Amino acid sequence: MFGGRIAVLRLSHRKERDKRLTTHVMLTARAFGASEVIYTGDKDEKLEEKIREVVKHWGGNFKVSYEADYKRVLREWKNSGGVICHLTMYGINVDECIKEIPKDKNILVVVGSEKVPRDVFDFADFNIAVGHQPHSEVAALAIFLDRLFDGKELYLEFKNALIRIIPMKKGKKVIKVSGFQSKA
Amino acid sequence: MFGGRIAVLRLSHRKERDKRLTTHVMLTARAFGASEVIYTGDKDEKLEEKIREVVKHWGGNFKVSYEADYKRVLREWKNSGGVICHLTMYGINVDECIKEIPKDKNILVVVGSEKVPRDVFDFADFNIAVGHQPHSEVAALAIFLDRLFDGKELYLEFKNALIRIIPMKKGKKVIKVSGFQSKA
Repeated sequence: MFGGRIAVLRLSHRKERDKRLTTHVMLTARAFGASEVIYTGDKDEKLEEKIREVVKHWGGNFKVSYEADYKRVLREWKNSGGVICHLTMYGINVDECIKEIPKDKNILVVVGSEKVPRDVFDFADFNIAVGHQPHSEVAALAIFLDRLFDGKELYLEFKNALIRIIPMKKGKKVIKVSGFQSKA
Repeated sequence: MFGGRIAVLRLSHRKERDKRLTTHVMLTARAFGASEVIYTGDKDEKLEEKIREVVKHWGGNFKVSYEADYKRVLREWKNSGGVICHLTMYGINVDECIKEIPKDKNILVVVGSEKVPRDVFDFADFNIAVGHQPHSEVAALAIFLDRLFDGKELYLEFKNALIRIIPMKKGKKVIKVSGFQSKA
């Protein structure tokens, strides 16, 4: 079982074109057990605000931050002893390389939007393919984190949530959480 | 191992707002083993064309079609003996219900965009949650199909592909496929 910290680096966000996909990348990162997301490209306050609203309501400590220079993020991650996993359809199938990823180190998962600069492939310790067909960085991220956490990420509990879902065979049930939770 | 046919029903596509997300839903459906996608909402020729281009280059027989009335799709699927699985964060955790899904029937996987009409929950044989946190219909679809196919969907071969990726530790390698493939 993986024991490190996970951050996701979303490359080259374009404010108009990518706003919904980047939101989905970030929400998937949070829901599947990453503790933070860093994005490059266009700085986007509304996007950040939307993610922080989700965290406020649904709990946990997921962080979102902007960084202009992806190389700086990659270099600093390496220098601090972390591992870089770049998700790309051109890489090695996830099932072949997942066991080689150190389970005790912090992992930076890099997902692109359009064309990913060549040096990202070189910076990466692992270039990992979730299949070799064109699909979606959202799907790739979900499957990668699911493999990393052995499916246990679907049972994560998020502290300090204001609302929570009660699973139902039909219909929707959402409860407000109150009482003795701390205000973090 | 699942042996039926899988179709995905994407509800309420909005031409401008959803074009990229719906593309990702459709590509994920194809890459993860569905044989077709049906969508409702706005008819979108460009979207369909994009998917057909992918199929032409990357192979397989994945079909995309538009249907104005989601109820008709759901009713016809039921009447033909198929099973309807609606992916929703309000449903029962996927790992709890995946074993109950008949392995020999055709499955329609329903994914919404914004608010899903109440009767979709009622039509569905299974309302299935890929976790109970807000994230993405793309991620939910990928994980659901991955569970259904026991991860084997990442090794699917698509017939009549014009190009194919050669997995690499660094960099990109795409080859043109030629020779004795039939022209389907």
